[in-house]
Amino acid sequence: VSSAELDRLVASIAPACSADAAAVRSHLDELTKPPGSLGRLEDVALRLALLLGDPPPPLRRRQVIVFAADHGVARRGVSAYPQAVTVEMCRTIAAGGAAICAISRAVDANLTLVDVGVAGPVAPGPAIVSRRVRDGSRDITETAALTREEAVQAILVGADAVRERLPDTDVFAFGELGIGNTTAASAVTAALLDVDPDGVVGPGTGLDDEGVERKRRVVRNAVDRAVRTGISDPIDLLAQLGGLEIAALTGAILAAAAARRPVSLDGFICTAAALTAVRMAPAARDALFAAHRSAEPAHVALLDALGLEPLLDLDMRLGEGTGAALALPVLEAASGFLREMATFTSAGVSGGAGRPQQ
Amino acid sequence: VSSAELDRLVASIAPACSADAAAVRSHLDELTKPPGSLGRLEDVALRLALLLGDPPPPLRRRQVIVFAADHGVARRGVSAYPQAVTVEMCRTIAAGGAAICAISRAVDANLTLVDVGVAGPVAPGPAIVSRRVRDGSRDITETAALTREEAVQAILVGADAVRERLPDTDVFAFGELGIGNTTAASAVTAALLDVDPDGVVGPGTGLDDEGVERKRRVVRNAVDRAVRTGISDPIDLLAQLGGLEIAALTGAILAAAAARRPVSLDGFICTAAALTAVRMAPAARDALFAAHRSAEPAHVALLDALGLEPLLDLDMRLGEGTGAALALPVLEAASGFLREMATFTSAGVSGGAGRPQQ
Repeated sequence: VSSAELDRLVASIAPACSADAAAVRSHLDELTKPPGSLGRLEDVALRLALLLGDPPPPLRRRQVIVFAADHGVARRGVSAYPQAVTVEMCRTIAAGGAAICAISRAVDANLTLVDVGVAGPVAPGPAIVSRRVRDGSRDITETAALTREEAVQAILVGADAVRERLPDTDVFAFGELGIGNTTAASAVTAALLDVDPDGVVGPGTGLDDEGVERKRRVVRNAVDRAVRTGISDPIDLLAQLGGLEIAALTGAILAAAAARRPVSLDGFICTAAALTAVRMAPAARDALFAAHRSAEPAHVALLDALGLEPLLDLDMRLGEGTGAALALPVLEAASGFLREMATFTSAGVSGGAGRPQQ
Repeated sequence: VSSAELDRLVASIAPACSADAAAVRSHLDELTKPPGSLGRLEDVALRLALLLGDPPPPLRRRQVIVFAADHGVARRGVSAYPQAVTVEMCRTIAAGGAAICAISRAVDANLTLVDVGVAGPVAPGPAIVSRRVRDGSRDITETAALTREEAVQAILVGADAVRERLPDTDVFAFGELGIGNTTAASAVTAALLDVDPDGVVGPGTGLDDEGVERKRRVVRNAVDRAVRTGISDPIDLLAQLGGLEIAALTGAILAAAAARRPVSLDGFICTAAALTAVRMAPAARDALFAAHRSAEPAHVALLDALGLEPLLDLDMRLGEGTGAALALPVLEAASGFLREMATFTSAGVSGGAGRPQQ
């Protein structure tokens, strides 16, 4: 485990400046459509052009990576499901029967599951990568989830998963799996945003009101403990309150941003990892696209902190990267229209360049 | 032109009852995910199952059809663009340079343009079908847009375009092109919903405030004239206030519903046609999926009347079927997860059947 390797990764992330924003806006207004008529797809096209150049390349080779791990805090009754569901769902993904398998197929994306530390055995398979740091994180109400060294190791697991797939990947979608991980993400969010833990706790997979109250107490205890212990930087924060898959997501986001690959971010947990990554390397934000607005209530506060507006709003709250995968065709459509559309001049269409006739 | 043919088409449209709704809901809750966690994707899956059976088949063979025509009312200054843009944009579609060309490619959909009556020559091409009823509709402030016979003929043009493509198509997306057609659609909407014309007129391709005021007066005049003349049924309404592509869209929707093919509906104009079709054959609604919420303000009233909730909300207002095409992967994702996901029992995952453990 090399902290120097992580330092080099963070230092390699530069702001997206592959195109001039004013020139891209002019290009958008010269295309054969009323100015602004593609709405938020035009904002996505602008950001893709800044990241990748104008015109942006096709985003056809799509890679979904789901990072899975267990959480010691699961024993506190913070999930509607028992911890065993993490390993069972890993096996379901391996067998092709999970929601993310179907949705990845629907959008023609390749799918990989990275086991960063599930609490039981996951058999190797064509879509399964075993990079276990430890058998789940520790209970954050009692102690740090991870040592700082384990957190760095998990971050680099995520970074490696991305770097190994760069030659075949135009765009990434990241997701997660881990019973108890909305509890860890809520604690990370409360610490990142310095807000009251009560406001960042939601029902997760489907807790009842009593369960949500219990989860609030658990998150408050964990945040209080971590703050007493002291949090000096985002790596400490991941170690104190996060978990293995949240750390791996953070590293995956850093590596994708360093390589200038657009990232379709799933919901609450992924976005907590994204804000952690952006605290380490602010320019990483330029590679991030918020796929959807999760039904988990604290998601919107994280999106606001990142200045990202979600593309889809379908009331989804499953995780596994399902929202992130579903948004991949929207990113390709934005890239495609900027790359492939004619201009008013080239097509000989009347009334162009943002100046419609009245 | 056979009114009897249209009567037979309308009579052939039956409600979607290929599955039992309660059984589909049970199936949805048995899948390996927290109950309801795929949000509105689950509602789409339920409706697809009712239309096509549970499990629904793949929706891989995607056909976008854009219906184009001109409008006599365009000479009243109701659009930000001159009428010539209709034929120019038809040529841009033929050359592959329009927004709908790029977005169709992005979602792997085949694209066809049907010229139902553009006011200038559109050269034939591989993606162009010429089924011209007349050189644009008449000015609706002065007289009926179409004779009843022309309206029936245009409806059957739309129906034929769908029927000819049924053997190779799992799912349709419909769009339109025609300078002045938000004016016609506003008039149709005011008459269909029996509401004040002022409330259903928006900026279209980008009118300024003065232009919107002018458009309001035009729509009010047209609706007043048509109501005085008398409107006896939806075909009369299309003849009095609609246009050739709006009538063709109505026929396309009827034919797709009769053949039980899901339809991804574009924005305001397509939805006005959809409500017209549903007034002719209420069961046609079961085949319709609202792709997106258009920025055109009256769209939401039409969606409410149809009881449809839009899938995407990206502030798009281009037309051409761009929103409809962009939603096709969402329909495939909904079909795919219901068809391909494992159940709690089959996958051996703990805590299934909608009864999470606390």
